[in-house]
Amino acid sequence: MSAPAQDVEALRLRTRDFIRDVVIPAEPGPDVRLSEELRDALMAAAKDAGVFAPHVAREYGGQGVPIEHWSPIFQEAGYSPIGPSVLNCMAPDEGNMHMLGIIATEAQKQRYLAPLASGEVRSCFAMTEPHPGAGSDPDALRTEAVKVAGGWLINGHKRFISGAEVAGFSIVMARNDAGDGVPAGATMLLVDMDNPGIRVGQQIHAIDRAIAGGHPHVHLEDCFVADDAVLGAPGEGFRYAQVRLGPARLTHCMRWLGLARRSLDIVLDRAEAREIFGHRIADLGIAQDMIAQSVIDIETSDAIITKTAALLERDPKAGSALSSIAKVHCSEAVFRVIDRAIQLCGGDGVTDRLPLASYMNEVRPFRIYDGSNETHKWAISRRASSRRRKEVAAGAARMDVVDGDVW
Amino acid sequence: MSAPAQDVEALRLRTRDFIRDVVIPAEPGPDVRLSEELRDALMAAAKDAGVFAPHVAREYGGQGVPIEHWSPIFQEAGYSPIGPSVLNCMAPDEGNMHMLGIIATEAQKQRYLAPLASGEVRSCFAMTEPHPGAGSDPDALRTEAVKVAGGWLINGHKRFISGAEVAGFSIVMARNDAGDGVPAGATMLLVDMDNPGIRVGQQIHAIDRAIAGGHPHVHLEDCFVADDAVLGAPGEGFRYAQVRLGPARLTHCMRWLGLARRSLDIVLDRAEAREIFGHRIADLGIAQDMIAQSVIDIETSDAIITKTAALLERDPKAGSALSSIAKVHCSEAVFRVIDRAIQLCGGDGVTDRLPLASYMNEVRPFRIYDGSNETHKWAISRRASSRRRKEVAAGAARMDVVDGDVW
Amino acid sequence: MSAPAQDVEALRLRTRDFIRDVVIPAEPGPDVRLSEELRDALMAAAKDAGVFAPHVAREYGGQGVPIEHWSPIFQEAGYSPIGPSVLNCMAPDEGNMHMLGIIATEAQKQRYLAPLASGEVRSCFAMTEPHPGAGSDPDALRTEAVKVAGGWLINGHKRFISGAEVAGFSIVMARNDAGDGVPAGATMLLVDMDNPGIRVGQQIHAIDRAIAGGHPHVHLEDCFVADDAVLGAPGEGFRYAQVRLGPARLTHCMRWLGLARRSLDIVLDRAEAREIFGHRIADLGIAQDMIAQSVIDIETSDAIITKTAALLERDPKAGSALSSIAKVHCSEAVFRVIDRAIQLCGGDGVTDRLPLASYMNEVRPFRIYDGSNETHKWAISRRASSRRRKEVAAGAARMDVVDGDVW
Amino acid sequence: MSAPAQDVEALRLRTRDFIRDVVIPAEPGPDVRLSEELRDALMAAAKDAGVFAPHVAREYGGQGVPIEHWSPIFQEAGYSPIGPSVLNCMAPDEGNMHMLGIIATEAQKQRYLAPLASGEVRSCFAMTEPHPGAGSDPDALRTEAVKVAGGWLINGHKRFISGAEVAGFSIVMARNDAGDGVPAGATMLLVDMDNPGIRVGQQIHAIDRAIAGGHPHVHLEDCFVADDAVLGAPGEGFRYAQVRLGPARLTHCMRWLGLARRSLDIVLDRAEAREIFGHRIADLGIAQDMIAQSVIDIETSDAIITKTAALLERDPKAGSALSSIAKVHCSEAVFRVIDRAIQLCGGDGVTDRLPLASYMNEVRPFRIYDGSNETHKWAISRRASSRRRKEVAAGAARMDVVDGDVW
Repeated sequence: MSAPAQDVEALRLRTRDFIRDVVIPAEPGPDVRLSEELRDALMAAAKDAGVFAPHVAREYGGQGVPIEHWSPIFQEAGYSPIGPSVLNCMAPDEGNMHMLGIIATEAQKQRYLAPLASGEVRSCFAMTEPHPGAGSDPDALRTEAVKVAGGWLINGHKRFISGAEVAGFSIVMARNDAGDGVPAGATMLLVDMDNPGIRVGQQIHAIDRAIAGGHPHVHLEDCFVADDAVLGAPGEGFRYAQVRLGPARLTHCMRWLGLARRSLDIVLDRAEAREIFGHRIADLGIAQDMIAQSVIDIETSDAIITKTAALLERDPKAGSALSSIAKVHCSEAVFRVIDRAIQLCGGDGVTDRLPLASYMNEVRPFRIYDGSNETHKWAISRRASSRRRKEVAAGAARMDVVDGDVW
Repeated sequence: MSAPAQDVEALRLRTRDFIRDVVIPAEPGPDVRLSEELRDALMAAAKDAGVFAPHVAREYGGQGVPIEHWSPIFQEAGYSPIGPSVLNCMAPDEGNMHMLGIIATEAQKQRYLAPLASGEVRSCFAMTEPHPGAGSDPDALRTEAVKVAGGWLINGHKRFISGAEVAGFSIVMARNDAGDGVPAGATMLLVDMDNPGIRVGQQIHAIDRAIAGGHPHVHLEDCFVADDAVLGAPGEGFRYAQVRLGPARLTHCMRWLGLARRSLDIVLDRAEAREIFGHRIADLGIAQDMIAQSVIDIETSDAIITKTAALLERDPKAGSALSSIAKVHCSEAVFRVIDRAIQLCGGDGVTDRLPLASYMNEVRPFRIYDGSNETHKWAISRRASSRRRKEVAAGAARMDVVDGDVW
Repeated sequence: MSAPAQDVEALRLRTRDFIRDVVIPAEPGPDVRLSEELRDALMAAAKDAGVFAPHVAREYGGQGVPIEHWSPIFQEAGYSPIGPSVLNCMAPDEGNMHMLGIIATEAQKQRYLAPLASGEVRSCFAMTEPHPGAGSDPDALRTEAVKVAGGWLINGHKRFISGAEVAGFSIVMARNDAGDGVPAGATMLLVDMDNPGIRVGQQIHAIDRAIAGGHPHVHLEDCFVADDAVLGAPGEGFRYAQVRLGPARLTHCMRWLGLARRSLDIVLDRAEAREIFGHRIADLGIAQDMIAQSVIDIETSDAIITKTAALLERDPKAGSALSSIAKVHCSEAVFRVIDRAIQLCGGDGVTDRLPLASYMNEVRPFRIYDGSNETHKWAISRRASSRRRKEVAAGAARMDVVDGDVW
Repeated sequence: MSAPAQDVEALRLRTRDFIRDVVIPAEPGPDVRLSEELRDALMAAAKDAGVFAPHVAREYGGQGVPIEHWSPIFQEAGYSPIGPSVLNCMAPDEGNMHMLGIIATEAQKQRYLAPLASGEVRSCFAMTEPHPGAGSDPDALRTEAVKVAGGWLINGHKRFISGAEVAGFSIVMARNDAGDGVPAGATMLLVDMDNPGIRVGQQIHAIDRAIAGGHPHVHLEDCFVADDAVLGAPGEGFRYAQVRLGPARLTHCMRWLGLARRSLDIVLDRAEAREIFGHRIADLGIAQDMIAQSVIDIETSDAIITKTAALLERDPKAGSALSSIAKVHCSEAVFRVIDRAIQLCGGDGVTDRLPLASYMNEVRPFRIYDGSNETHKWAISRRASSRRRKEVAAGAARMDVVDGDVW
C-alpha cells in the first residue's frame, strides 16, 4: 500500500525546493495574513510544481501519499507558516479531507471533497461548544440534530470554529436521540455555509493567525439539512470524530515541527553571521547547549511522529492513543525550540525584524488546542494503568510486592 | 533611614485599593496602549490618593519610600499593567529618577528631576547601540562625546531606546577620550529631545507594549550640549550605569511580580467559578500542582527581591551583584506563572477575552532586556568562582581534594 | 527578643571555622557512619569552641539564638554532613528540643530536655505508622493511648521512626478518646526507651545515612506511662505537632542548604584545578551556566528560608504555612545543586573519591520526608484558593470576568 | 538482511517470558551482586529457552538478530537489572562482540569471540585513562604501543575499565607512531588478562553495580603481544572505536529503557493496590500527570532508539551521530522515570523494600558514561551548525536576513 520510499523522498525534495524558492520569498510580514489572491497564485504554482495536496488521493488532484509518509512532506510544508495553506494541507481542511475520504459517500465526495481537495472551497469542523458544552469532553455535546421528514433539524451554538469565516461548508457534530434503527449518540452532518440556518457569529481573537477564517462562534438555528447530508451513519459521530482527531493531532505536530526547524535555522544562520550573547558561537557553550537541546527536541519529535504515523496506518485505534503522546511531546518541544530561538537572538528575537515572536504566538495555542496537554496526559495515564491492570489480570507477577508483612 | 514599617504597610494598602478600585476598571483592552489623556487623569487621581511616585523623595512630590521597602508597593502597582505608569514608577523614568536623585546637581534636579517626578515630562536612557556597539557589553560603546569649547559634541547611533518617542530628555551614554583631568571612559549627558542634534529614528516593533514611546532608534549627529549637561563627572559613566542598572533590574522584578500575582488570581477566580480541564478544581491534582508551582515561583521571587533590595540599600555593589540573580530567577518565574495561567484557562487563555496572552508578550522580553539571562548567568558564575578563589587563597581547604595519587 | 546581629554573625564565623578546621578533617569516608566515640569527642570540642547547640537556650548549655537567626548558623553546620550531629542540631533531636522548650513542664525539661540539649541522650519522634495509618495525613493515626489509673496505656505500631535505635526516649503520638475534660484527639507522651512496653523493631534500610539510629519500626504493646508523661495537654497533640513540624521542616532546609554550598565549592575548586568536560572552565559556557543555576538555587533557597524563619518567629501559624513552600523549593533546589555537581565532576562524581554521590543519596529522601512535596503542593494550592476566596468574599473584584455573555 | 518481523516478535515474547518467569524470581537483593554460580545457571537456562545472546550470529550460538531489531529484545532483557548479563548482552561484552564480529580475523573470532559469545569468558575495553589522558576526548590518548620484533610493546595506565576484574581478555587502545606502512594513530590490541604485562589495579567504587568486575584501574607495563594481537589494521583504532561506540551507546539506552518500564510498572501496580500521596490514584491528577510524563519519556525514548538503530544498520556514520541524540535523551528520560517512581512510592521509594533507589544509583552514571551528556550536546550543536553551513554554502537562502540596513 505504501508509496515507494524513493517517490516520497523525491516529493519531499520537490516540496522543499518549492517552499524555499517560491513560498518563503512570498511570505507576508509578521502579523499580516496571507491574502486570498496570493494564496490562489501560490496554489496554482504548487500544482504546476507537482507538490499540491500531498495527502490527497491522485483522483482528487493530490499526490497520493499514505499517512505513514506524510511527516517528511508536511514538515517541509510547515517550514513556512503559509506553506501548509499553499499546499492545501492545513487544518482544518486537511483533517476534513482525510475523514471525507474514509467516510463520505461517492456523491458526497464529488460534492464536497473534490472542490475542497482542489482548493476551490474551504471548510470547517464544528464540534467545540461554549462552556459547559462539548469542549475537550465531546460527551458534553449540546447541539442537537432532530430527525424530521426528509432530513434533520439542527440547533446549537458552537465556538472556536476554526476557519468558519471563509468556509464553504461545515461538518457539524450534533447529538441525536435513538430512533428508527439509529442509536442515540452523535451524528456528523454536512452543512453548506449558505444554508440560512447556519450563521457565523462573533470572532474570537486568539494569538495565532495561521488559520484563515479565525476561530469564530457559529450558530445553528433550525438549520435544515436533507438526509444525504449525514456523513457516515447517524449515531456514529463520536467514533468518526476519533477517526479525524488522531491523524489531525499528528499532522499539527508535523507542520509545527517544520516551523521549529525553521526557527533553529534562523539561529544557526545568525550564529554564523554574528555574535550570540556578545560572543562568537564557537566560544559559547551555553548557546551550543541550547542549540543541542533544540536538535534533541526536533529529532525526538520526528521519531515519535514517525512511529505514530506508521501505527495509525496499521492500527488506527492504537495509533490514535499514541497520537496523544506525540501531541503532548511535540507541542511542548516545538514551543521550547522557538522560545530558545528567541532567547538566542536577544533583543531582535522579540521584535518583528525576525519572525520568531510571531511563531511563538502561533504555536503557544497548540499546547491547548486539540485537547489540552493536561487532558491528554490524564488519558495517557489511564491507558497505562489499564494496560498494566490487564497484564496482571492475565497472570503477570506484580512488581511492587515486597516480601514480609510488616511493610 | 528606613520609613517605619507601618507607614510602608499603610501606603501598600492605599496603593492596593487605588489599583483595584481606580486603575483596573480603567485598563484599556488587550493590545491597546494607555492614552495620554487617561494617563494624566489617573496620575492626578493617584496624587489625590497619596500613592503617586512611591520611590521619589517627598520634596519632589513622592512618597519617600527607601528602596528596601519598594517591593511590596511596586508589586501592588504592577498588579495592573498600567499601574506603574499611573504611579510614575515605570521604566525607564523610574530608573532615571533614581539616578538623578543620587548623581545630579541641584540645578539638574530642578530642571530634569522635578518635572520627571511630577509626571510632566518623560525621559529615556540611551545606552544600547546597534551591533557591534554597546549591547549587553557596555565596553563596546561607540557613541562618542568630544569636548569642545563650552560643552560637548555627541555623535552616535543608539537603538532599542525605550520611551524615546515620548521623552522630553534623554540621558545619553557616550565614550570620551582622556583629557584635562578627565579619564578616558564613558560620560553621561543630559540631552533635551528638542536639541536639533538628536533625532528619534525608526521604531522597533517589539511584542511588549507597556512602555510608552516604544523602543526606537535614536541618532545623535553633531549634537552639542553645554558643560552643565554632564551628569556627574565626565569619564565616570560606566560606574554610574551600574548605579542605575542594579536597582532598575530589581524594580522590573517587582513590577512584573505584581502581574504574576494578577495572573494567578485570574486562575484562582476562574477555578472557583467553573471547571479547569473539564473538571472541578478540587478534583484536579494537576491544576492544584500547577497553582502550587506558581505560588512557589511568586514567593521565592518575593523573597529574593526583598533580600536584594535590603542589600542594595546597605551595600550597593553587593546588591547589584545579587540583582543579577534576582533578575534571572524572577524573569523566568514570572514567565512560568503566566504560561501556566494560560494553560489553566484553556482555549480562553490564548484569546483576548482574558489578558493572559498579552501578559505573556509583555513579560517575555524581560528574560532578554536588561542583559539577557544567559549573560547574567555568565557573570554570576564568574563571581562565584572569584569568591571561592579568594577563600582558597585566604587559606580555606580545597574541597575537591582526594587522598592518594592514582586518581 | 532577637540576639544582636553582630553576635549572630560572630557565632556564624566561629561555627564556620569549627566546621572547616575541626569537623571536616574528621569526616568518615562515604557510606561510613560517624562513630559514637568520635561524635562525643567532637561534641566536647564544639562546647569548648562555644558553638554547641546554637538553637538551645543558654540555661541548657546552648547559644540561645532565636529561630529567625538560625539559618546562617545551621547552614555552616550543614556544610559537613556530620556537622549538625556534632553541634547537636540534627533531626530529630533538634525538633524535639524546640518543642520541649515550648511545651514541656519544668520537671519534664529537667528530665528530658537538659540531657538531650547537652548531647548525653538522644531522642526520636514516633508519629508515622505503617499504611494505612498516619503517614503524611496525621488524621489517620491508629496508635491509641487509653487513660487508666495513674497514667496511660499505649498500643500501636510506628514505622520510619528516625533515630529510634539510639534514642533514650521517644515522643509518641497516640489517638485518645474524649473523657474527663479531655477532648478526643491526639496526645503526645514521653516514653523512655527502656520502658518494657516499647520495642524497636525491624530496621528499614533507606538510602540516607546522616541520622544516627536509622529509621526502624517501633512497637508499643500495653506500654504504660504515668500521667506526668503527657507532653502538654491531652488531646492537643495535633496542634503541638504543627508547632514541631513547621520549624523542623525549615531546619532541614537550612542544614541541606549548607551541603549544597559544599557541593558547589567542590565543583568550583575542581574547576580551578582541572578541566570540566575536557575543557578549561573559562572556555565553557555550559559549565558556567550550570554553576550559575546552582548559585541561583542556593540564593533563592536562602532567601525563602530567611523570610520563613522571620515569619515563624512573628506568626507561627503563617510561618508554618510558608514553610511548606520553603520545603518544596529547597528540597528540589538542593537536589538539583548536587545533581549538577555530580555531572560537572564527570566520572569522578559517581564514585566514592568525591562525596557527591553519597550526598545525592542523603538529600533525595528530603523531597519525600516531612510530607512529600506533592502533598505540600496540594496544601499550598488549597491555601492559595482559600486566600483568594476570602478576598473575593470581602469585596475584591473578580479578575476572570469578561464583558459580554457569549463566552 | 533483516530477520522477518514475526521472528523478532516471537523472540521478544520468549525473552519477556524468560525474564519474568525465570530471571526476576532469581534477582539478588538490592546492592547484592549476581553470583557467578547463579549467573552460570541462568545462562544455561537462557540457552535452553532459546533466548541467549540475541545480538550474536547463529554460528556463535546467538539468535542472529540484526541491530535494527535489537531494541525490543534488549528492553525485555533490561526489565531485570541482571537480565542483560544472563542473556550475555551486557556492556562491555556486548559491544566487544559486536566489534569483533565486524573487525576480527577468523582466527581471532575463534579464539576470542567464540568463548565470549558463549559466556565462557568475559572481556573489557581499555580506552579511558586518568586525567589528562584519554577521557571523553580520545585524542588525548597516552598509552603507547611500540612496534618491536614479532609484535608490540604496550605501556600505559587505564582507569574506569569496566569489567576488568573478571575479564579473560581486554581490547586495549594505544597510540602508535607512523612506520612501515602504518599511519600514526591508535591501534587496538587483544591482550589476554593473564599476560604478565597487564595488571588490574585499584578498584574504583562507583554507585552502579550492574557491571560485574567493577571499574578498576588497569596498568600496562612493557606488555608484549604478538602481531596477531592487532585487531583490524594498526593505526585505525580511532575509526574502529567509533564502530564500537555508536552501537554501544544505543544498547545502553535499550537496556536502561527496560528498567524504566519496570519502574513504571512498580508504580502502576502499587497505585492499584494502595494509595499514592494518601489518596486513590484515580482521584489524584498529580500522580496521573507524573505517570503520563513517564510514559511520554518511555515512548519518545523508544522512538528515537528505533530510528537510530535503523540508521545504524543503513548508514553507520549517520547512525553514530544520531546515537548522541538518543544517548542524551534516553539517559535523562530514564533517570526522570525512576526519580518520579521513587517520588510516587513515597517513603518506601527510598528504602530497599523497593528496588527503585538502587535503580537510581544504577542509571545516574549513564548521564556521564559513554561521553557526558554535555560533551555530546557540544558535538550535536557543532553538527547542526555544520549541516546548516553546508546548506547555505550550497545555495540555501539565509533565514536570518532582515530587510533594511539599520538593524
